[in-house]
Amino acid sequence: MVDFAIPPQLQDLGEQVRSFVREQVIPYEKDPRLGPHGPTDELRRELNALADARGLLAPQAAPRWGGKGLSHLGRAVVFEAAGYSPLGPIALHCAAPDEGNMHLLEAVASEAHKQRWLGPLCRAEIRSVFCMTEPHPGAGSDPGLLLATARRDGRDYVVNGRKWLITGATGASLAIVMANVEGEGGGPTMFLTDMAAAGISVERILDTLDSSFTGGHGVVSFNDCRIPADQVLGEVGKGLKYAQVRLAPARLTHCMRWQGAACRAHDIALAYAGKRQAFGKTLGEHEGVGFMLADNEIDLTMSRLAIWRTAWLLDQGQSARHESSVAKVFCSEAQFRVADRCVQILGGRGLTADTVVEQVFREIRAFRIYDGPSEVHRWAIARSMLRKARAE
Amino acid sequence: MVDFAIPPQLQDLGEQVRSFVREQVIPYEKDPRLGPHGPTDELRRELNALADARGLLAPQAAPRWGGKGLSHLGRAVVFEAAGYSPLGPIALHCAAPDEGNMHLLEAVASEAHKQRWLGPLCRAEIRSVFCMTEPHPGAGSDPGLLLATARRDGRDYVVNGRKWLITGATGASLAIVMANVEGEGGGPTMFLTDMAAAGISVERILDTLDSSFTGGHGVVSFNDCRIPADQVLGEVGKGLKYAQVRLAPARLTHCMRWQGAACRAHDIALAYAGKRQAFGKTLGEHEGVGFMLADNEIDLTMSRLAIWRTAWLLDQGQSARHESSVAKVFCSEAQFRVADRCVQILGGRGLTADTVVEQVFREIRAFRIYDGPSEVHRWAIARSMLRKARAE
Amino acid sequence: MVDFAIPPQLQDLGEQVRSFVREQVIPYEKDPRLGPHGPTDELRRELNALADARGLLAPQAAPRWGGKGLSHLGRAVVFEAAGYSPLGPIALHCAAPDEGNMHLLEAVASEAHKQRWLGPLCRAEIRSVFCMTEPHPGAGSDPGLLLATARRDGRDYVVNGRKWLITGATGASLAIVMANVEGEGGGPTMFLTDMAAAGISVERILDTLDSSFTGGHGVVSFNDCRIPADQVLGEVGKGLKYAQVRLAPARLTHCMRWQGAACRAHDIALAYAGKRQAFGKTLGEHEGVGFMLADNEIDLTMSRLAIWRTAWLLDQGQSARHESSVAKVFCSEAQFRVADRCVQILGGRGLTADTVVEQVFREIRAFRIYDGPSEVHRWAIARSMLRKARAE
Amino acid sequence: MVDFAIPPQLQDLGEQVRSFVREQVIPYEKDPRLGPHGPTDELRRELNALADARGLLAPQAAPRWGGKGLSHLGRAVVFEAAGYSPLGPIALHCAAPDEGNMHLLEAVASEAHKQRWLGPLCRAEIRSVFCMTEPHPGAGSDPGLLLATARRDGRDYVVNGRKWLITGATGASLAIVMANVEGEGGGPTMFLTDMAAAGISVERILDTLDSSFTGGHGVVSFNDCRIPADQVLGEVGKGLKYAQVRLAPARLTHCMRWQGAACRAHDIALAYAGKRQAFGKTLGEHEGVGFMLADNEIDLTMSRLAIWRTAWLLDQGQSARHESSVAKVFCSEAQFRVADRCVQILGGRGLTADTVVEQVFREIRAFRIYDGPSEVHRWAIARSMLRKARAE
Repeated sequence: MVDFAIPPQLQDLGEQVRSFVREQVIPYEKDPRLGPHGPTDELRRELNALADARGLLAPQAAPRWGGKGLSHLGRAVVFEAAGYSPLGPIALHCAAPDEGNMHLLEAVASEAHKQRWLGPLCRAEIRSVFCMTEPHPGAGSDPGLLLATARRDGRDYVVNGRKWLITGATGASLAIVMANVEGEGGGPTMFLTDMAAAGISVERILDTLDSSFTGGHGVVSFNDCRIPADQVLGEVGKGLKYAQVRLAPARLTHCMRWQGAACRAHDIALAYAGKRQAFGKTLGEHEGVGFMLADNEIDLTMSRLAIWRTAWLLDQGQSARHESSVAKVFCSEAQFRVADRCVQILGGRGLTADTVVEQVFREIRAFRIYDGPSEVHRWAIARSMLRKARAE
Repeated sequence: MVDFAIPPQLQDLGEQVRSFVREQVIPYEKDPRLGPHGPTDELRRELNALADARGLLAPQAAPRWGGKGLSHLGRAVVFEAAGYSPLGPIALHCAAPDEGNMHLLEAVASEAHKQRWLGPLCRAEIRSVFCMTEPHPGAGSDPGLLLATARRDGRDYVVNGRKWLITGATGASLAIVMANVEGEGGGPTMFLTDMAAAGISVERILDTLDSSFTGGHGVVSFNDCRIPADQVLGEVGKGLKYAQVRLAPARLTHCMRWQGAACRAHDIALAYAGKRQAFGKTLGEHEGVGFMLADNEIDLTMSRLAIWRTAWLLDQGQSARHESSVAKVFCSEAQFRVADRCVQILGGRGLTADTVVEQVFREIRAFRIYDGPSEVHRWAIARSMLRKARAE
Repeated sequence: MVDFAIPPQLQDLGEQVRSFVREQVIPYEKDPRLGPHGPTDELRRELNALADARGLLAPQAAPRWGGKGLSHLGRAVVFEAAGYSPLGPIALHCAAPDEGNMHLLEAVASEAHKQRWLGPLCRAEIRSVFCMTEPHPGAGSDPGLLLATARRDGRDYVVNGRKWLITGATGASLAIVMANVEGEGGGPTMFLTDMAAAGISVERILDTLDSSFTGGHGVVSFNDCRIPADQVLGEVGKGLKYAQVRLAPARLTHCMRWQGAACRAHDIALAYAGKRQAFGKTLGEHEGVGFMLADNEIDLTMSRLAIWRTAWLLDQGQSARHESSVAKVFCSEAQFRVADRCVQILGGRGLTADTVVEQVFREIRAFRIYDGPSEVHRWAIARSMLRKARAE
Repeated sequence: MVDFAIPPQLQDLGEQVRSFVREQVIPYEKDPRLGPHGPTDELRRELNALADARGLLAPQAAPRWGGKGLSHLGRAVVFEAAGYSPLGPIALHCAAPDEGNMHLLEAVASEAHKQRWLGPLCRAEIRSVFCMTEPHPGAGSDPGLLLATARRDGRDYVVNGRKWLITGATGASLAIVMANVEGEGGGPTMFLTDMAAAGISVERILDTLDSSFTGGHGVVSFNDCRIPADQVLGEVGKGLKYAQVRLAPARLTHCMRWQGAACRAHDIALAYAGKRQAFGKTLGEHEGVGFMLADNEIDLTMSRLAIWRTAWLLDQGQSARHESSVAKVFCSEAQFRVADRCVQILGGRGLTADTVVEQVFREIRAFRIYDGPSEVHRWAIARSMLRKARAE
């Protein structure tokens, strides 16, 4: 039965997160330990401790790992509230890539792997990376171009390859690595490894438009890195399948977090438009600005609906691959329009770091590309529609 | 609890309407009794009889008038199904302005008025018009410019004024007329009158971009038209308040019906793109076309969510004035983008009446203006946001 | 030397056309001889006579045919002025398809063909059609799908095929027909034939979104139509090459004429916005409307520059194929945005035929498709850029 | 006579600048002396010396100051070529705000002022700032809100006020300051002062989205700063008039420089699209990407035309206030669309500083705000159109 009411318990949890972010997280936005590659790990741990003290650490994790076992809809509410500050998801430990990695491990990993990796990860004792994307001419949007290889050698696999745009590379303990197992019965496979293992190095941290992720985005190379065969995640050759397990929910949680950030930018622009005077009235009373605020309201409302609906589908056990593509394109583009309008409404002020709007603009611009650029999703949406239409 | 599932009974009703439209209504789309001002009343009655035979006439009406007493969400499902053909809502007798007038009378009219007008209207024995809009310099988007007057004279009011863009004028029996009652205790007031009354004339039928409404859009003049005082709808001076009672739901039902039409256009374009060849592959395999199809999918999905959410709010007893403005702007613009893309995908064929896409394009273009142009809604949305922000 | 000044003589000619259109053509816009398929031939001749009396008939034609031999830039000025009314180009006999056909014949036809066909055409004694486009699955955007055939039989070619969206079909005397000459040494070829020839029939006139072209758009079939071999236009097998000779300039003259129409719509909207009151001020003083007017100004200014630049290139003897694609996409889309905004500014009035804006909106929507839909041009632009980049 | 040909001499100069930028400037783009607030002054001087060695320093300056006295059209060609690298205009010393300040001083300053300030400025011995914009609630888009004051005291004016977004503040020698002269015969007035004067301090350098300008954007405060009365620029009370002298050309030269940057971004994206493979073909062969390239071509072509036309009008001695607003809105928005598409085409790579595209995106986003945000220009364009329409 169609219903748009958030259950009271979840509403209450959302309210707790909102209060936490406003009271304890936002003050950190001017902390000197924030740089172009996100917070230092020291700052990250400080924020995690604050969230933990409020019982809000990794709320998406299963209860056995100390979380609240949030449904996808629960994440929609909580992650949006957390995203009201770019530091919120870091504080709650529900930011990318850790959040997606927890989801993947919960769904696919063996009990031994969970004990070894998932527990510490959920307790924010360690951070993790997801090493899939490769630089030109390797696997970017097209996973079929995977170049990294894993060759069996005794009880180990020897992994070689180069990955880039690896979020959180510096300071991470666990790496989930996609490489192509050579030979018969092989294929794209995921491995678990300690980032400190021999043969893994972070070549450099990329200077990027966005700046919120702990550890930034790095280039990671694997040179004859030996990974014990028992550290294959799930089964050999199922890497692309597991990537799908991770991707649809992970791209939706991005939508949730940036929804919060877009709302924040909008609130700042709205407050400014309500008081800044120009040409005899407030900015907001100028229709040119008022219409931008109205379009923000429309875009934010619609984005949230897209998120809720897809989360509900996932909660029904559906793969929601098509629907999560629809949500990803719509949300990333609508949220970007919101951020862009907020910059414009703030005028010169919008170009400065004096408000967080400038950062939100940069972050959401990047979101239009990662976890599948709009073009790849549009192509997938079209293909699935045409296929379905042909079948009818 | 957030839920996007349509209850089985309603799903079943939607399916019935879909079948009815495909099997019995669409074949009428080439009927010669269709002209630039919609179907003739003869054709309209023929279609109503078909719907009645399936038990589908005026499903939104209360059971005592022969309807199913659909909730707003029920209308969302049924009206979208009906709108799959421009003739569907006419057949089901859930088209504008009759549908909105039924809603208004149900909400506001006295029992005597209901007996006299609402019953026959719900049974499709008569049609009705809503005479509010006036030509320049009268009340268009700004109801404050109302020029039509009503002067008390004995047991009657004497109404004078000129209304235009009056949908369904030719052939209607009942007119709901907004006029300004002069003198103390007066103000904007709605009157019920027989269109055959002395002093009422349809000056002309306007040639318009759209062509779906029975009777077209006319200019109606009231010259010393006497309306008995007991034919005041509700109370004197409450006309603008009643207009609001009608407007929010009525604009939402427009969204529902055109949602169906936009889906139809999309289905036609999708089928065409799947088979028409150009430059060595099907149109749909060209990303330039595939991306348009994907954008259609996104727009249609999001429009439906906007409708459902607003319908749900209305079903909760909320006025949903702000939210229905959001839905109206979003749906009318998204559905128009869909129609525009479908024309483009069909190429030369899209410019001809060989498919219904050409009409859908014209109809939805008009919808961006009636029941409040986007600009008026954006202005209202902004004003309410700024007011709320100031209050916080 | 970069210069944006129109030479005085040309400016004067433009002024003459503007005056003619305002004084003598616009009053015909309500003439009952105008229907959904354009003016009757009687009305067309009446308008031609008025233009002739002012020395303004077919000003693009060479002096030997009674014209002024306008350069492409000259056409830019004169055709825009003519296009200020949808009837203007018809009056001046510079409308499609006759104008493009004159251009083609002047460039390609033999002296004998010119004497027989071009002279009468330039004097508006006859009208002509260009029979290239075919219905699905034939040649639409992709000329490679040409299905019409021409088989040599003695001194004749026997032509079979079906053409559609043939503008001006009813009432035309001359047809230029593209068909595939079978056998060795054959290929796509253009033929000249009298529309009255045996085997040619106008199957039907299509109901279309637009309504300005004399004779509307028809479906024309060729059933064993015999065309003498000396009526091949130019040479056998060069049909596609000649099509290019026609297309680049012809699509640019469309831009010119619709530029005039878009300016007309804008002038009407601007005047309305300057006087219509709403919510305490004129529409134009509402920024929501003012910004639309500003965007119109920007779009109209830029469209004109695109036209002038491409016309100048053509006048330099360049093929300007790439540049005319750029101009076609930009102008058709910018002019459509203008028309769409004008409808919106006029509100309900914009949906009626009470002003010409409603027609201009329909006409320019169609223009986004004919002479190459935007998608085909974008594809061609991209291909030529990528090729050039590779070569560098 | 309409003409789009660049004279050979100017074409040659453009080519020289292009070569200089490619050969000598672009290699500096990875120089460690570049930071979030642009190049250091050391780096700036090094670049100026290189340009000087090629005879390309301050080509816009009058010959008596060592320049080439470029016309506005000449600037259009040369500045676009310079803008191909964000460092190009800095090297040529034709970047904001110095370039606009030179223009202003040339037009308005006394011979003594020119000798003292303009000469050294044109020789790149010093840098300058333009102190007009104030933080909330002072003069931003609305110059009527000017708060800075100048009180006459003996032979000096005593200036108090706070300016922000003052480009190039750190390291500048000359400040042109707008302040309101109190008392009768006063009004907004421009003053010339040495930045080292007592009472002037750069409070802080703002962290901003863009990063190209030498010295960044600062907050500058004037506390009882004494400026000799003979350092009034031009006349007392004419500050707003002089601002106009500066603004129209200065906003156009921004368009020119960013045009070059947008072309650079496009060239990089085009080259990448031509070689990067995805899903079995190059990115560029995917229409989804190809259409973006085509739209870039259209936007870049049209922006250049807007610039040329406005430059030509300025060269004719017209104020071109309306036209420069049209050009500013169109160019800043079209160039931003180009930059945004280039980021998208490059995918993950587009988010990194590995190419200059990421910076160009940030720079042009800022350009949509400075020198008048789009909204202020749209408002001005509309107002002038409505006024003109009323007058007709």
